[in-house]
Amino acid sequence: MAEKKHIDYKESNLYCIRHSVAHVMAQAVVEMFPEAKYTIGPPVENGFYYDFELPHPLSPEDLQKIEKRMREIISGKHAFIKKVVPADEARRIFKDQPYKLELLTGLEAGGSDEYGNPLEEKPEISIYTSDNFVDLCRGPHVEHTGKINPEAVKLMNIAGAYWRGDEKNPMLQRIYGTAWETASQLEEYLWKLEEAKKRDHRRIGKELKLFYFSEDIGPGLPLFTPKGEILRYIMESYVREVQTRHGFQHVWTGHMVKEDLYRRSGHYDNYKDSMFPPMVDGNVAYRLKPMNCPSHMTLYNEMGQHSYRELPVRFAEFATLYRYEKTGELSGLTRVRALTQDDCHTFCAEEQIGQEFALDLQVIQEVLGRYQFKDYTVRLSLRGSAGKYVKDDARWSRAEAALRSALDDSGLDYYEAKGEAAFYGPKADFMARDVLGREWQLSTIQVDFIQPARLGCTYIGEDGAEHTPVVLHRAVTGTTERFMAIIIEQFAGAFPVWLAPVQATLIPIADRHLTYAAEVADVLKAGGLRVEIDDRSDRMNAKIRDAQKQKIPYMLVMGDKEIESKQVALRLRNGDNPGPMSVEDFLSRASKEIAEGL
Amino acid sequence: MAEKKHIDYKESNLYCIRHSVAHVMAQAVVEMFPEAKYTIGPPVENGFYYDFELPHPLSPEDLQKIEKRMREIISGKHAFIKKVVPADEARRIFKDQPYKLELLTGLEAGGSDEYGNPLEEKPEISIYTSDNFVDLCRGPHVEHTGKINPEAVKLMNIAGAYWRGDEKNPMLQRIYGTAWETASQLEEYLWKLEEAKKRDHRRIGKELKLFYFSEDIGPGLPLFTPKGEILRYIMESYVREVQTRHGFQHVWTGHMVKEDLYRRSGHYDNYKDSMFPPMVDGNVAYRLKPMNCPSHMTLYNEMGQHSYRELPVRFAEFATLYRYEKTGELSGLTRVRALTQDDCHTFCAEEQIGQEFALDLQVIQEVLGRYQFKDYTVRLSLRGSAGKYVKDDARWSRAEAALRSALDDSGLDYYEAKGEAAFYGPKADFMARDVLGREWQLSTIQVDFIQPARLGCTYIGEDGAEHTPVVLHRAVTGTTERFMAIIIEQFAGAFPVWLAPVQATLIPIADRHLTYAAEVADVLKAGGLRVEIDDRSDRMNAKIRDAQKQKIPYMLVMGDKEIESKQVALRLRNGDNPGPMSVEDFLSRASKEIAEGL
Repeated sequence: MAEKKHIDYKESNLYCIRHSVAHVMAQAVVEMFPEAKYTIGPPVENGFYYDFELPHPLSPEDLQKIEKRMREIISGKHAFIKKVVPADEARRIFKDQPYKLELLTGLEAGGSDEYGNPLEEKPEISIYTSDNFVDLCRGPHVEHTGKINPEAVKLMNIAGAYWRGDEKNPMLQRIYGTAWETASQLEEYLWKLEEAKKRDHRRIGKELKLFYFSEDIGPGLPLFTPKGEILRYIMESYVREVQTRHGFQHVWTGHMVKEDLYRRSGHYDNYKDSMFPPMVDGNVAYRLKPMNCPSHMTLYNEMGQHSYRELPVRFAEFATLYRYEKTGELSGLTRVRALTQDDCHTFCAEEQIGQEFALDLQVIQEVLGRYQFKDYTVRLSLRGSAGKYVKDDARWSRAEAALRSALDDSGLDYYEAKGEAAFYGPKADFMARDVLGREWQLSTIQVDFIQPARLGCTYIGEDGAEHTPVVLHRAVTGTTERFMAIIIEQFAGAFPVWLAPVQATLIPIADRHLTYAAEVADVLKAGGLRVEIDDRSDRMNAKIRDAQKQKIPYMLVMGDKEIESKQVALRLRNGDNPGPMSVEDFLSRASKEIAEGL
Repeated sequence: MAEKKHIDYKESNLYCIRHSVAHVMAQAVVEMFPEAKYTIGPPVENGFYYDFELPHPLSPEDLQKIEKRMREIISGKHAFIKKVVPADEARRIFKDQPYKLELLTGLEAGGSDEYGNPLEEKPEISIYTSDNFVDLCRGPHVEHTGKINPEAVKLMNIAGAYWRGDEKNPMLQRIYGTAWETASQLEEYLWKLEEAKKRDHRRIGKELKLFYFSEDIGPGLPLFTPKGEILRYIMESYVREVQTRHGFQHVWTGHMVKEDLYRRSGHYDNYKDSMFPPMVDGNVAYRLKPMNCPSHMTLYNEMGQHSYRELPVRFAEFATLYRYEKTGELSGLTRVRALTQDDCHTFCAEEQIGQEFALDLQVIQEVLGRYQFKDYTVRLSLRGSAGKYVKDDARWSRAEAALRSALDDSGLDYYEAKGEAAFYGPKADFMARDVLGREWQLSTIQVDFIQPARLGCTYIGEDGAEHTPVVLHRAVTGTTERFMAIIIEQFAGAFPVWLAPVQATLIPIADRHLTYAAEVADVLKAGGLRVEIDDRSDRMNAKIRDAQKQKIPYMLVMGDKEIESKQVALRLRNGDNPGPMSVEDFLSRASKEIAEGL
């Protein structure tokens, strides 16, 4: 699989289409507002935007007019013609466009890309002309506007944006649009957008009462309700079970350490800004743990001298780590300050890297499969030619070969990213697509040649000499919090039965059926199910509707008939109505669905 | 049971005996060193001491001589004669004893008890004379030295002690002794002392590799190895299971909050010194949680308006709390800075106090029983006559009556301690004796009339009006860390099978038996057992010895004979040798012992 080419977005046809549609949109806007000053218009994920300085704020009606005019321009099949020009000529062309003149000055000084990042070599100055519109642009574009499918283009919304993202600069108007190759792709994208809104984990989290954030506790520090805690607990218990079965051992190292440890491990210098402020008492400072590795290495050391016969030593821990993310970057459970990693550190000899990496792959595949992630790719980040990497060519080569070979054996889809490795070793990241096709970075495995030596980890080899173990850092679901956000959206809150905080709601039709409901509940609880009784005096249909809203897998209705026949009437959250069955039959049906991960 | 009288140590015969022996010892010391200045000599737990200023440091031989002379004095049947004297006369009697003169000054100024605590009313000045020894003393004493059993007295050791515990004062020599009613009591005490040393959890923790403390992490912050973590995990899973079965719900509230929350809850003022230093960023300060209650109340509030129909709401959490204990007070796992409470807060209506208190009692009884604590007493702390208590007589009376009635129903042994309640409500503490007879305060249940109102917790009552719930604070084992220390000592590391980190060690006699051992291990693991294979090339007897040292309940030896008969040869950690049996028979024996809590 290693030969499979990973296509970069910037080299794709979609990128060209979106870049071209941005020009078409700018032409339509400038035609409508001849005094418009236009700035930059790059493709972005799923679309493009263009920023303008305009005489008045745009209305939704303006967008409609612009979109109409764009279709006319597109139908003209205007060629995109590139011309490399001297700076003087460019200045003449854009003499009425102050933002373009500013960009030109930047280009002459060395240039930057459309996102404002400096370029590696001084660029040529090129313009692209299509129809009556000229833009300062590096391209690439489609051949002519006829290559744009007008049925696959849509303007989305208007937003304010400071010139170059700097609030000291003028506020511009940004028009966002999307463009695809086919109308059905556009339709799917719009459906997914709508669906993503419905599935937003912050919204579902509230509807299902899973977690809350409180001003009194602090930003990014979630509180989990009984239902949210059960979900956390099942998620972590499941990974714990898989890890234990595969020979990982769990340890406990708490939530704080002396700051000095992070100075020795190197994290203080590289990671200080992401740590919570220190707790200082006289000349000792403590820090909340932003990662487990120094603590696991300390425990490894405290346990005494290790022998090669003990290796690999695999320390796993579900530890809540604290990272001081900027408040502006916090977002629901996706980006929090309290994050519980399903972290593992494997101490091994160099020749065990391949075997341990393969074991990690196996655990990750099993877990992601259980959560119904079928579509994922592994990015294998390798050493590049630049010099930031630990200098030990033979060691790097051996490790990279071991990883490659394990990936080949695993049958996983992977691609190599040269130059993307950390300085301390190669790594593999799992990029998984959810049901909406959104890509999430989940699992990670990193080989570490450096930190174990910094913290003095050793083992006595078969040769009787002291060696430094290699450490593999590994996370399966990443963090409980972020992964919970992802699976809430993956399942739209309708968790598989094994994960559902409440698996069955018992619905007695009238108060006289409560005793029977309690008896059934006891049987189901003894059978390992999480059940609750809806003992409110509401009508049956209202109770069913509520349970469906709560995405509870099974509703068991019981009235006189059911009591007489010692049955329960089963309904499902999707509206299906399997009807009456004995409690035992229901229990075996549920147990089967739980075992199958449905 | 409420009528059962709890006998205060200070009112006991043992207290009189020890106090009297202290005088006898002082007489012997003063006879031996006429220049001795004697200070105070109180009874303490299990014995007594007396502090002296002496011309030279005492040797162990001196102790023997003192003990010999004490036996002579005891045999003289000297009466202890009390006399109340004017201060002048006392000053004359103790004119050569500067410490006594200092004590006299204190007595005249209002007095303090033998521990230095101020007395409530100005005391009379009394002296006790026995034989040729006179002491400034409030008594009480035995009638005469003949009431002391010389076979039940022993001097223990010598230690340095500053006068009045203040390091600016002279260093004195303290002689510790012990005294009992009978020789067999003394013998039992000495055995328990010896046994307690052997059972010291710090020692066993190292032998069994359960936990470590590291200078790199910080004092009082334990690291748990895989075996220690398994123990923690089983302990917490067990309590979680009991709590879930009894209708408690688990929540998750992390490890830190904004400091302001503790200002509002009242903890900042009362508890500041026990908190870790703040994490300060600009004008916001965060604190590690030293308790869960404000977080649980915040979650209760965030979940929206509650109705009386939802009550009781029972929030349980195994949260690691951080308390900044003084480094000098830290001791193994008994006193740590990272403590994981099995905490619960029950929000209920006032009329539910009795029922919820009874439920808590039930959970605690079940759990303590499982850990083989049979001998415990409940101290019910009630309001006193003094004014620190919340002023709501009727409410207090109703709550106290509800608690008393629940305790009566429970059949538990309890006694009432008037004036010992917290200002916010009555409470019950479980005082349990371990196998060595040492008393530990374990579980606690506290009624809280105050904090819920401070943090704005409410519910809508049946009357449609807003009410403040009462909160019951409850811990079952207290904290995982301290309780682990206690059970390590309770079981001397030989945990019941259900708790043992490794339940069975498989001992293949030679390398050719390893495959069979691996097969057996798979069967046992599938049966839910925690097993390990001792695959070292050591001799069988050495492996058995090691497993016994590790207090592993079952050793399964397997050689040619066992493979042929598809059996395992069972040995137990106590040396018993049940011999060969089928794997299935062993598994059902183990499962039975686990279920029985053995």
